[in-house]
Order: sequence, then C-alpha cells, then structure tokens
Amino acid sequence: MKIAIAQINPIIGDLPGNAAKILCAAQKAATAGARLLLTPELSLCGYPPRDLLLNPSFVEAMHISLQQLVKDLPPNLAVLVGTVEENLQAQNNGEKPLFNSMALLDNGIKQVFHKRLLPTYDVFDECRYFEAGLQANYFTLDDIDIGVTICEDLWNDEEFWGKRSYTKNPIADLAILGVDFIVNLSASPYSVHKQQFRETMLRHSAVRFQQPLIYANQVGGNDDLIFDGRSFALNRQGELICRARGFETDLVIVEFDEVQRDLLPSTVVAEYESEDEEIWHALVLGVRDYAQKCRFSQVVLGLSGGIDSSLVAAIATAALGKENVFGVLMPSPYSSEHSITDALALGESLGIKTTTLPIGQLMQGYDNTLADLFAGTQFGLAEENIQSRIRGNLLMAIANKFGYLLLSTGNKSEMAVGYCTLYGDMNGGLAVIADVPKTRVYSICHWLNQEGGEGDKGRGGEKISSSSHKQIIPENVLTKAPSAELKPGQVDQDSLPPYEILDDILQRLIHNHQSAAQIVDAGHDTQIVDRVIQMVARAEFKRRQAPPGLKITDRAFGTGWRMPIASNWFAVKNTYQSKTIPIHN
Amino acid sequence: MKIAIAQINPIIGDLPGNAAKILCAAQKAATAGARLLLTPELSLCGYPPRDLLLNPSFVEAMHISLQQLVKDLPPNLAVLVGTVEENLQAQNNGEKPLFNSMALLDNGIKQVFHKRLLPTYDVFDECRYFEAGLQANYFTLDDIDIGVTICEDLWNDEEFWGKRSYTKNPIADLAILGVDFIVNLSASPYSVHKQQFRETMLRHSAVRFQQPLIYANQVGGNDDLIFDGRSFALNRQGELICRARGFETDLVIVEFDEVQRDLLPSTVVAEYESEDEEIWHALVLGVRDYAQKCRFSQVVLGLSGGIDSSLVAAIATAALGKENVFGVLMPSPYSSEHSITDALALGESLGIKTTTLPIGQLMQGYDNTLADLFAGTQFGLAEENIQSRIRGNLLMAIANKFGYLLLSTGNKSEMAVGYCTLYGDMNGGLAVIADVPKTRVYSICHWLNQEGGEGDKGRGGEKISSSSHKQIIPENVLTKAPSAELKPGQVDQDSLPPYEILDDILQRLIHNHQSAAQIVDAGHDTQIVDRVIQMVARAEFKRRQAPPGLKITDRAFGTGWRMPIASNWFAVKNTYQSKTIPIHN
Repeated sequence: MKIAIAQINPIIGDLPGNAAKILCAAQKAATAGARLLLTPELSLCGYPPRDLLLNPSFVEAMHISLQQLVKDLPPNLAVLVGTVEENLQAQNNGEKPLFNSMALLDNGIKQVFHKRLLPTYDVFDECRYFEAGLQANYFTLDDIDIGVTICEDLWNDEEFWGKRSYTKNPIADLAILGVDFIVNLSASPYSVHKQQFRETMLRHSAVRFQQPLIYANQVGGNDDLIFDGRSFALNRQGELICRARGFETDLVIVEFDEVQRDLLPSTVVAEYESEDEEIWHALVLGVRDYAQKCRFSQVVLGLSGGIDSSLVAAIATAALGKENVFGVLMPSPYSSEHSITDALALGESLGIKTTTLPIGQLMQGYDNTLADLFAGTQFGLAEENIQSRIRGNLLMAIANKFGYLLLSTGNKSEMAVGYCTLYGDMNGGLAVIADVPKTRVYSICHWLNQEGGEGDKGRGGEKISSSSHKQIIPENVLTKAPSAELKPGQVDQDSLPPYEILDDILQRLIHNHQSAAQIVDAGHDTQIVDRVIQMVARAEFKRRQAPPGLKITDRAFGTGWRMPIASNWFAVKNTYQSKTIPIHN
Repeated sequence: MKIAIAQINPIIGDLPGNAAKILCAAQKAATAGARLLLTPELSLCGYPPRDLLLNPSFVEAMHISLQQLVKDLPPNLAVLVGTVEENLQAQNNGEKPLFNSMALLDNGIKQVFHKRLLPTYDVFDECRYFEAGLQANYFTLDDIDIGVTICEDLWNDEEFWGKRSYTKNPIADLAILGVDFIVNLSASPYSVHKQQFRETMLRHSAVRFQQPLIYANQVGGNDDLIFDGRSFALNRQGELICRARGFETDLVIVEFDEVQRDLLPSTVVAEYESEDEEIWHALVLGVRDYAQKCRFSQVVLGLSGGIDSSLVAAIATAALGKENVFGVLMPSPYSSEHSITDALALGESLGIKTTTLPIGQLMQGYDNTLADLFAGTQFGLAEENIQSRIRGNLLMAIANKFGYLLLSTGNKSEMAVGYCTLYGDMNGGLAVIADVPKTRVYSICHWLNQEGGEGDKGRGGEKISSSSHKQIIPENVLTKAPSAELKPGQVDQDSLPPYEILDDILQRLIHNHQSAAQIVDAGHDTQIVDRVIQMVARAEFKRRQAPPGLKITDRAFGTGWRMPIASNWFAVKNTYQSKTIPIHN
C-alpha cells in the first residue's frame, strides 16, 4: 500500500483554498497510485485557527467544506483531513465544545478521530477550545490496521522524556491493539533543533513499540509561527526511510510492504548543514508567507548600515525578490559616514532599490516645537527616541502610501532588554529577527557570506547575489562596533554588556528559567545579572506592543510569552512606593 | 464566630508587599475579634501571575513568604492565604506542575486546598499552569465545618446555567458533606453586570444547597484587568447580608451564629445607581492602579477637543488628581477652531495643566522630506496618518522627558474597525477606554455631567470639578459630530456607519459570535455588515500592537482576544491571490 503525505501550506481560515490544496494533493497522490493520503493537523482550517473556533459559523463552514471535499476527491483514495468536530456531550458532561479531529474520507466520511493529548503551554492553547479524545484511534484499510495520532499524541513517551506530561500514552494503546503502522498528523512549529528532536523522539517510540511511524507536518508561516514541514517516516526498526523537504510544500510517498509488514525505503531529503542555514530558510519562509497571506507583494525597511537591518534586507530579498524590497536610509547629524556607505553597499549587493531621506530638518522641527516645554533640560533619552520615531513615521508613510509591508529589524537581545524605541525602530507589520539573538545574527550573516547567496538556490528560493564570490553583507557591517547612532559616538556597549555575555544571561533567564543566583553561579557578574534582569522586566510594556516576531526558539516573545507588565517580582528592591523609577522609559 | 474578609489590592509578584497587606488586614481583623480571615485567590502573589509561575524561583519565594507570614500573624486568627503548591505527582502522573491553592494558616500551615475548576477561556489560562484538585475542600475550626472553594469552583451550577461547564460541582460535594458554611476565595475581574450576575448565581446555589456563602474578591487593576472587589455574603436563605465596597480595598466582618447555624446581617454597601457610574469607577481604578503599580505619579495625554480624550482626561483627573494630569493640544491646519476652544474649556473645567504645540511646521517638514518620493500622488491615508504620528511622537517625547505615563484615548468602536492610527493616536502605556464602545463613551459623559464631578466623592477618589453645578465635559464636545480632523471637513460618519448602528453590529459580532447572516437578520444592512466585518478583520494587526486596554466587558480586545492576523476567514470573497488589498492599511 502506498501512502502519500501532503505537506501543504494552508492559510488560516481559508476553507475553500485549503480544501483546494488538499484536493490537488489528492489528485497527484491518486495518479501516483497511493491508497491513503495524509494531511496535517487541522488541515482544512490551518493551524492555529485560535479564536476563530469560537464562532459557530466557522465550525459550520468547516462541516460544509468537508462535505464538499468528500464529493470532489478521486475514487479509491482514502484521505485523512484535519477538522474540528462538535462535542455533542459537552453541555451534559461539562466538557469543552469541540474536538481537534481527523476525518477519514473514503467515499464518504468513514470515521472521525479525536486528538487525545492537548498541548496547553508555550504558544499552544488547546484546552481553551478542545476536549480530549478518550479512545485509541485506528482504522482498517484493505486489511491493514492503521493507528491514528494527532501531533501531541506522540509527545508523551515517558521512557524517552524521563517523565510523563499527560496521563495517557496513545502509542502504547495502539501498540497493544497491534496495528500495522501508526500515522501522526501534525502542525508542529519550527524551532532550532526541533527536527533532530522529533526524529530522535519518534525513533525511540518506533523501536520501543515496534511500530512503523509516518509523521506528516504542516509547512508555512502563520503570523509568528513557522511550520517547517520535514515530514518523515521510520520503519519498524526506527530507521529513517523518508524525509520531505524543509520549509516548502511537498508531496512524498512511502510504501507499506504487506509481506514484510514494514515501510520500504523512500526519498530522504538531506538535513541542513548548519543551524544558521536552517534558521535562514525558516526566516525566509516566515517573511514570504506573512507578506503573501496578508496580501502584500512588496516590503519596505530602514537601512541603518547595521547588521540587523542588513540581515533583514537579505532575508526579504530571498523571500520576495530584489524588485520587491525597498530600503530607506535616514541619516541624522549623528550618523557616521560608514552608516551610509555600508547601507548603500548592502543595497547594491542585494540589488534592491534604496532612497535616502535625511532627518536633520525634522529633528530641528521637533526641537523647535518642544523648545519652550523642554527649556532647561538636557539632551537625553527623549531626544534619542524622537529620531527613531521620525524614522518610524517616515517608513510607515511610505508603507501606507505605496501599500508596502514594513518590516522591523530588531533582534531578540535588544527586544529582551528594551534597547529599542517603541513607535520608532520597533514599527512594522512583522518583526523578522525578533527571536534571533544578536550573536546568532552575526553567525547567520557569516554563513550567508560564505554561501555567497547560494543559500536558497535549489530550494525554491532565489539566489540573492549576482556573483557567488561576492559577500552579501559588507565586511564593515560585520566588523564595526554595533551602534544605535542616536547621539555622537554612541555604541551599544555603552549601555549593554558585550553581546556574548548578554546573550548567555538571556538564554539562562528566558529559556532556562534560572534565578539571578543560578546565573551568577554560572560565572556571571552579580551587578550585570541584576541589571539585565531589571531591563528585561522593565521592557515588558514595549514587547506587549511589538509586532509579531518570527519564532525560531523554544521560548519566543510573542503569543507564548505571557508576562504581567505592572509587576514587582523582578524588582531587586521593593521600590514601587518611591515612584522615582517608572517602568516605562 | 466572626469571619473577616480582607478585600486587598495586591501587586503582581510583590510577595513581601502583598504579605504585608495580608498581615495588616489580619491585625485589624484580630482586633475586631475575628477568628477567621479570608483573602482573595492567589493573594500572596496577586492574580493573575501569568508566566511568572514558570519560574521555579518564584514558586520557591512564595513558600518562603508563606512561612514568614505564619510567624508574623497574630495568634488565635486563622487565615486563608492564596498561594501555589507544587504537584509532587506531576511527573509520575503526567499532570501540570502546580496547584492553585489556599493555605490555612493557624499557628502553622494547617491544611492546603486545591482549586478544582480551572478556567481556560477568555483571559484565563489556568490549564497552562495548574492541575485541578480532586477533593472536596473543608476544614473544622472551633467545631464549625467550613467548606473552601476557589473562584471558578462555584461557577458550575448546572441548574443555574442550564448546562455544565465542568464535570464536577464542588458545592454539591460540600453540601453532601454537610459543612456549616462555604467560603469562596476569588479573583474575579470586573465587567458590566458581573456583580449582579455573581449575586444572582450564588443566591441560587445558596438556596439550592441550603448553604451560607461568603465570597471574598480581589480588588485593584492589574494591567488590562480590573478587579472590582464587592465581596459579599449570603445567608442560608440566599439573602444578601453583607456587601463590601466596589473598586476599593475594604475589610468587612460577618458573623456566623452557632445557634442559628447561619450568617447574621451585616453591612451592605449600596449598588451603583447606573452602569455608567459603575464603569466610571472601574476605569478610575484601572488608571490609578496601572500608573501606581508601574511607578508613575503623572500622566500625559493629547486633548483633541473630542469626546474620547475629554473622558480620558476626566478619568485620569479623578484617578490621580488634577495636578498630575497634563493635556497637550496639537492643532493642525485642518483642526477646527472648536477643537482648540473645546479642549481648553475641558482643561479649565478639570483644572489640569495644558499646553499647545501646533504641528503645521512638522507636517511641512514631512511633506518636504517625502516630496520627491511622493511626487505625483494624492493626499490620502498616508498623509492623514503622518499627522497622527507627529502627535504620537510629541506625546512620547514629553512622556520620556518628564517621566509621565502616556494614556491613549481610543474607544472600542474605533479599535474594532481600525479607525485609529498605529504609532499615532494609539500610542500609550494604557488604553483607558479601549473596551468602551463609542455610544457608551457618550452615556458616561452625560452621567458625569449630571453628577457634576461628584461621582467619586466619598469613595476615596476626589471631586473633579470645582463647582457641582458646572458641567465637566463641555456641551459642544457632547453635541458636535465626531471627527478625526485629519483632512478638511472630515467627520467619522464619512467612513463609518452611525455609531448606534456600528456598536450594535460590533456587539453581535464580537460578543455574541453572530455570523453576517444573523446580523443581517437582526435588521442591519447587508453591505454595512459585510464592510464592518471586513474592517474588524483587517484591523487585527493594529490591535495586536495596541497598549493594554482596561477590560469592562465580557469580550475585550486584549489578553482574552486571540485572533490570527494572516487569516482569510472573514474575507467575503477569496481575494488573497489578487494581492491588491493589503490587510494592513
């Protein structure tokens, strides 16, 4: 029996469009002789549909779309389609109103399976909407017994994890039933290391339960979440016999041999050579999909000559094509000469259009307007922020005028400590590298220069440099000291610890939930640690108003980061009564 | 037995400060002869602590604070303190790592009770952190059996609701055990009608189960959530025998008569005379607490002469005092004469400081800077937004320079349809009336003028007008047509349906989850309904970047509103491939 995996890229809520994508895959699968087609979790509506699920008309429309799909599908192809099913016992039993389900379509809706383990952590809110299914899910097709699991259902192998995260382990139940193989229909967002982790984890389960496993994942960017695809299959010995492409749609076919009772070797797409390469492809997809799904063809961004905006420009160019990226230089009297030459060199290297709009006159205009009110005060943070906000206003004016999407260019290190201006450089519809620490920004740029812009070649993207020998990010951008250039001679390290130190502290604080004492024990300076913790806490009000940022780590600021603003926990001393240190600055 | 309710206002994460508040209440309660003191849900850390709960050091610090509190409490007073308890079986059983608990302190930690029903809807994420308790919770004090429930535990009376929301009903379990009375320790956020609903619901339970009930609620603003207090008690017949103050801290005492086996009549604070009055007090508290808990003593806001900024200025004045509110007029060449005179009249009426910063010169500066780039284009949305963003930049400059909190003044109707400028008039640390529909803005202002600024008198606030006969909101503000004044002669109704119609459509769409067809069936015009639905969907990217907005309804934009941005559900036609209508505008 041939089983096809439709690694599709749905648009959230676009039921007819997503059904068309499933149908297209089904036709190809049928042509290729497949008997069963797998689609990702909630493939009909796209994952995550979030509060659209609270609309009864949305749920009803899914039923109608599913019924239509049943009619349109080719004969002799069974298809597992992700959908929601109403929980008819909800009000009697005191349960949630929906199930996160997979419908087996095979000349009609033959069976409906409910997801059993509902993730409610990080970016996942499934207990908000869904009741957990109680039964082991399987069906029989041409005398082959196929176990069905939905995403998280396979993420609770207590042997692998050394602990349980849920009471049940669905794969154990299916193994007891003695199914022939198990499919897992997923919408698993990307983060660094995630694919290696998935393959290692499922290999453990395949071997432990002697079960061939076929894992079908969604692909595509949906707001902050990037789904990486890379669907794969393991045979009964846990060997990888198939891997689909990363960060692209794909249709792959695996074959279950009815004599050997196992999956046969199939196509295995190679892994990326480095984390930097992998993250690059993730971010390119994230930008492309956010733009296209929000119906933009062109983007605009500010080019400061710094490394952050240089990387974002390169990502946007790879995502949308050089003719669709517009870079704006906005020098002030405090800008260095190299900020202009470096930005222009980058623009030339990428082949994108640029323009230069000096902001000196506007700075003078604000100075004049505020002169009486600010008389007798010193140049400070207020004046620095005015510059950033002039730039933000110019960029939004351009975005509004020409229908461009504005990309913001702040990295995770500065989002963490608030080294950024709200309504200034934070402006944008999408924060491309908001989950990329500064040290990683450098390593991706170095990788990009080594690749010479070939990074995306052969993977559906486009080469972003005209010569493979030319470095894309100008050398000076990589070597000069980072600076916001909001006052004369300013460099980041006047205000922040060196980025290697800062990023390590942030990793421990944000990802590892370490206390100040634990971070100091790891070798960091007490005063620096306390200061970083304070800065992170005080920047919460800025992060709350930040654009969606593409998530590439296991703990991103965004939908999975839920912190109070008016909180006193991170205050080293209880100074809240003194009223001298406002949290916002 | 005398039972005291400590209606305290905790700061999130401020363990020493909150413990001090509990201790202070305990000393007063002991002096008054109470044997038992009730405090709100999670009183030690404040509700909601959100992702602070993911930090092991935070949980550990709560244990230490609780141990210290045990030592400090007066003798002969038992105290129920809200805290979290580690779930020691979590990893073995596949459960969440914490319980939402109440500790009974009475010369040591005598018992710990776990919340049984965990709300995971709207703004609540309790399944993200907590495992549900399984046992009926009660204790015996001086031979009186007291049932313990925590907030949601009493919100599942299937007789009252006509359905179950959870499998268990803790009050039914306690009634079977035959306790003498039941306490409910809550952190229940305010919304319009909520108190009447609570009292009606618990009256039903009191009567049904023949149980006296004592309900202790948190008070205070925590980011977007306003907790209204209004703790109350019902005797065995369901009669209201006590009600504490609304929107203020309070300490009230009720007495359980051991002969009658019932609660005796106590102080009942009167209800508000109107919804407008109640909302006014909610918003005043929300502003005061957000400012103080973020360590601000002064606020700044733009005064346009319109009704929204007028109401916000009045709220801020009542919250922080007229000497702490700074109003900024920023007229443009498109501003009407009355926009200035009305704003100045309001400033005078409130007695707040104002300044006037004309923006014409800055508009000219942007025009000059963008002249080449925008050559040949028409004045439009881009130019309108520039004006709003100049104002936003000036306000933030003032906020940054003087350490003021900027308040934003947009109402819910315009936040819904996106009739507001991101990085412009949306700027601010707190969106004061973001959950108040425009029609309600008018009714609150009319109420305020009738009250003549006496609204807050006698409730801990201050009178905001020097004469009780003078109307606070100038008459012209109430009667003129609303306008953004971003181009000559513009009024809101050029772009929007009349607010009575718009607000009714929004209520049906946002609160009642009605479909377009249902809203049309209710008597609205099809084209208007479709257009409003489109506008609401397309404004999602703006709302995602909005400041926290004070929640006063059962469905606010904010932490309980979780919508995708790049979604195609609300598109009437599937136009996403045309790329002609960007979602952001």
